[in-house]
Amino acid sequence: MRFPRNASQSLSRSDMLLGRLNREALGRNEHFKDLAGNSCIMANKANVLIDGAWVASRGTATFRAVDPVTGEEIGDEFPVSPWEEIDLALAAATRADAIVRDWPAERFAKFLETYASAMEAHADRIVALAHQETALPISPRLRDVELPRAINQMKVAAECARGGGWALPVLDTKNNIRSCYRSIGPVFVLGPNNFPLAINSISGQDFAAAIAAGNPVIAKGHPSHPGTTRLFGELAAQAAETCGFPGGFVQLLYHLAPEEGLRMIQDARTASVAFTGSRQGGLKIKAAADACGKPSYLEMSSINPVFVLPGYLSQSSEQLANDFFGSCLMGSGQFCTNPGLIILPAGPEAELWVSEMTARFAASKCGPLFSAPVREHFLENIRRLASAGAEILTGGKACVGPGFHTESTLLRISADEFLKHPLEFQQEAFGNSSLLVTGSTEADMLRIADALEGQLTGCVYLTEQPADEQFYRDLEPILRRKVGRLLNNKMPTGVAVSPAMNHGGPYPATGHAGFTAVGLPASIRRFSMLQSYDNVPEHRLPPLLKTT
Amino acid sequence: MRFPRNASQSLSRSDMLLGRLNREALGRNEHFKDLAGNSCIMANKANVLIDGAWVASRGTATFRAVDPVTGEEIGDEFPVSPWEEIDLALAAATRADAIVRDWPAERFAKFLETYASAMEAHADRIVALAHQETALPISPRLRDVELPRAINQMKVAAECARGGGWALPVLDTKNNIRSCYRSIGPVFVLGPNNFPLAINSISGQDFAAAIAAGNPVIAKGHPSHPGTTRLFGELAAQAAETCGFPGGFVQLLYHLAPEEGLRMIQDARTASVAFTGSRQGGLKIKAAADACGKPSYLEMSSINPVFVLPGYLSQSSEQLANDFFGSCLMGSGQFCTNPGLIILPAGPEAELWVSEMTARFAASKCGPLFSAPVREHFLENIRRLASAGAEILTGGKACVGPGFHTESTLLRISADEFLKHPLEFQQEAFGNSSLLVTGSTEADMLRIADALEGQLTGCVYLTEQPADEQFYRDLEPILRRKVGRLLNNKMPTGVAVSPAMNHGGPYPATGHAGFTAVGLPASIRRFSMLQSYDNVPEHRLPPLLKTT
Repeated sequence: MRFPRNASQSLSRSDMLLGRLNREALGRNEHFKDLAGNSCIMANKANVLIDGAWVASRGTATFRAVDPVTGEEIGDEFPVSPWEEIDLALAAATRADAIVRDWPAERFAKFLETYASAMEAHADRIVALAHQETALPISPRLRDVELPRAINQMKVAAECARGGGWALPVLDTKNNIRSCYRSIGPVFVLGPNNFPLAINSISGQDFAAAIAAGNPVIAKGHPSHPGTTRLFGELAAQAAETCGFPGGFVQLLYHLAPEEGLRMIQDARTASVAFTGSRQGGLKIKAAADACGKPSYLEMSSINPVFVLPGYLSQSSEQLANDFFGSCLMGSGQFCTNPGLIILPAGPEAELWVSEMTARFAASKCGPLFSAPVREHFLENIRRLASAGAEILTGGKACVGPGFHTESTLLRISADEFLKHPLEFQQEAFGNSSLLVTGSTEADMLRIADALEGQLTGCVYLTEQPADEQFYRDLEPILRRKVGRLLNNKMPTGVAVSPAMNHGGPYPATGHAGFTAVGLPASIRRFSMLQSYDNVPEHRLPPLLKTT
Repeated sequence: MRFPRNASQSLSRSDMLLGRLNREALGRNEHFKDLAGNSCIMANKANVLIDGAWVASRGTATFRAVDPVTGEEIGDEFPVSPWEEIDLALAAATRADAIVRDWPAERFAKFLETYASAMEAHADRIVALAHQETALPISPRLRDVELPRAINQMKVAAECARGGGWALPVLDTKNNIRSCYRSIGPVFVLGPNNFPLAINSISGQDFAAAIAAGNPVIAKGHPSHPGTTRLFGELAAQAAETCGFPGGFVQLLYHLAPEEGLRMIQDARTASVAFTGSRQGGLKIKAAADACGKPSYLEMSSINPVFVLPGYLSQSSEQLANDFFGSCLMGSGQFCTNPGLIILPAGPEAELWVSEMTARFAASKCGPLFSAPVREHFLENIRRLASAGAEILTGGKACVGPGFHTESTLLRISADEFLKHPLEFQQEAFGNSSLLVTGSTEADMLRIADALEGQLTGCVYLTEQPADEQFYRDLEPILRRKVGRLLNNKMPTGVAVSPAMNHGGPYPATGHAGFTAVGLPASIRRFSMLQSYDNVPEHRLPPLLKTT
């Protein structure tokens, strides 16, 4: 976050006034003179989307996106919204909620589909902007994987909204008691840095689910890709208008001071909050929401352990190497489901595999991380793992040159050492790295599984040989309680938008092991409440609960 | 809670030793000499159920039940379990969990049915004991309503476990991703004072749901009816043994110091916690559980507002009077769903109705509350409402004589005054009372609905006259967001065990508006986690997810 001079407390009142006048006098991209008399070009200041209108932010602090490849600021200035602006958004969302809460599901479905079509129509612009702001590859990623996923999940959410099955309607006509899940009210969605399209606060999975349940959304984009977020906001606002929704139905802010975000969560007008991001941020949101009994859905952190059983390593070490290399370094490893902990059996085959992977990682290209803070955290976590006793096999440093490129990194620790301090070695290093745990006996593997914190995923690579199968029967019951998704012979990256997908898991991977962020229609239920109608006559029931 | 002399810190070490020896030398109901040489009869000290055995508690503090009619202690001494005992129970539950977690659903169903049959066979003893400990009527209540409900919900839970639909299995065979809800691990269930059978920690709705999901239960009975709880514990332990379950599958403690209960919740071996009781207690449990990201299901408090629309009052004031009188005073009003706030329209018909109800309440018999603390809290809350400005129309005092009898109480406040301090007038006074809000215009009613905290239920009494119907369309969308169950022309007491029942609601009525404590199979999902299986071959899948 960058604060312009007129927001600085060290400036005099006249300086501040001058700053303000300069700002007010400015058009888009005009030249102006700064306080020292130098001629400058000021970037456009983006508007926020409140109550159906793109309005100038009342905030004075601003920030800009940074190109991860060059490290240079790009695009417009984006505002940090102050409380008065958040307050306006909450008021508009409340008004919108009062208007739409009894609208038929069809209208929400129609909005999602209209928006999805607009995303298809503007695919090139979306992808180009996201590529510039995140350095994620256009192909194979933004153009052919992530955008299709974003569009698809919006269409599927529309179908689910229309079908109504997500709401689990129950009609006990004998007792005339009926129940279903229904909308809950304005949902505050905070998007992460790593999926600028499919988890974007105003185009992603939480947005689609919250809308499908019939709720207004106030989106807060991630500051690492504000331009992409604004473009989505424009498409969403147009779609909402086309479909006749009130202005407060979809709103967009780009950035908030953390304390204002927490205040917003605790505000009575916010019904629920969804967050994808760091554990540190998620825990603050959880504490704020918990303190006032507000439902929050948080996807916070995961190191996604991969257990390799001896039979598999003997038989298919090359397959494992390919799977792991691709999964760990794709997108510079910036995935919630990056395989961050590989538990290997003892023996020479494992040692050989470790050498092979070390060589491959060492020979791989540096990966651009999203931002300076992301790289800083990454390197800090690598240092922390190393100082706890992990050996850095390769990588662990920033790359020379512009941008936030970072070496592909492999670390190693023995099973014995891991088990001495299991929590220390479960620190997520978000980026292109993984920690190999070597020399694990079967007993060690069981103890490691038992010592795991809650995870999004857990993988086991094994054969159908009796030894592998037999050990799996011991390992699986322990591991499955620690993870939301259990995989066999497959890396955890690549979260299919399947109705059977669980992108969730026990704390601290998320805030509650009963909910998923992907996997429609289940993900919709997060943004709803269970409502029972007792002795309510047919004509006063919601459509889903009527018998005729 | 009563501490025997040997637990007192003021005693010398030799006194303590003597006390311990005395205790150890005792059989059941034997005479013994106290320290001063007096001959005494000591009540039996009940054993706790840990790891399949009824063992003497290591705790020194004890308590006894109190007959609410006479105010006198009755029955055996029951122990307050110290941490070392809780620790043993947690260890045994963990071992049991490791044994049963992959057992077929059929076995859990069989246990529930075996136990239900035992409850039927011992109905007379159960009912007699519960009547003595709670003063709840045998009929119409314990014998013909509550015990059948307890037995029925156990049988229905068994059917649900067997059917598996509660687990929402999803088989995406194309992608070979499958998901369902599965057991989560040992569940700690804390029962309330007001339903000694149907919500008892070892026989009630949470117990049945936790078992149906496949989890071990550590039950903590409510100290107001320990004898009833022990009897259930005996039947449950026998059923578990008959069905071949390990000892740690069902365990029973009678009482814990509050800080030990919170420690137990935060212990890593506790997977989840269910509580029905006061808001004060529930919030402490919630904070402890939230702090370590543990799922908790809390049914805490509710005043269950009833809105009376003018058309109904004109047409059916007698029906309303009968409904309200019965619902409010039944069981001395000690229901989670007691109608505690009646919002009446302005006008002479309402005034007449208030006079009529005042007369009926004044003429009604005193109701026995469960215990001295319950009565104390009740009277304190009535005083608090009165000092905030509510007029006591009738009642508000303890009755003369033994036991905890209390006057049927009606209070009144104007809509204007209510709206000035809406939170103060939403204090639950658990017992035989209700607060009438008089002189409400339609606008007032909407503002009152909007000012409500989260509730288990909300009722509207109305006709199909245009004025009532039209106003309902404004009131319903506001009210339904505040409640878990919305009723028309029906009082909220009487929670049918229907698959469409929601015994839940927004905070602070419960901890999360997405879950219900009654209503099978939905209530089972509370004690489970969502698990997805990705690329897992058929033979390693749980039965529910296999295609063959």
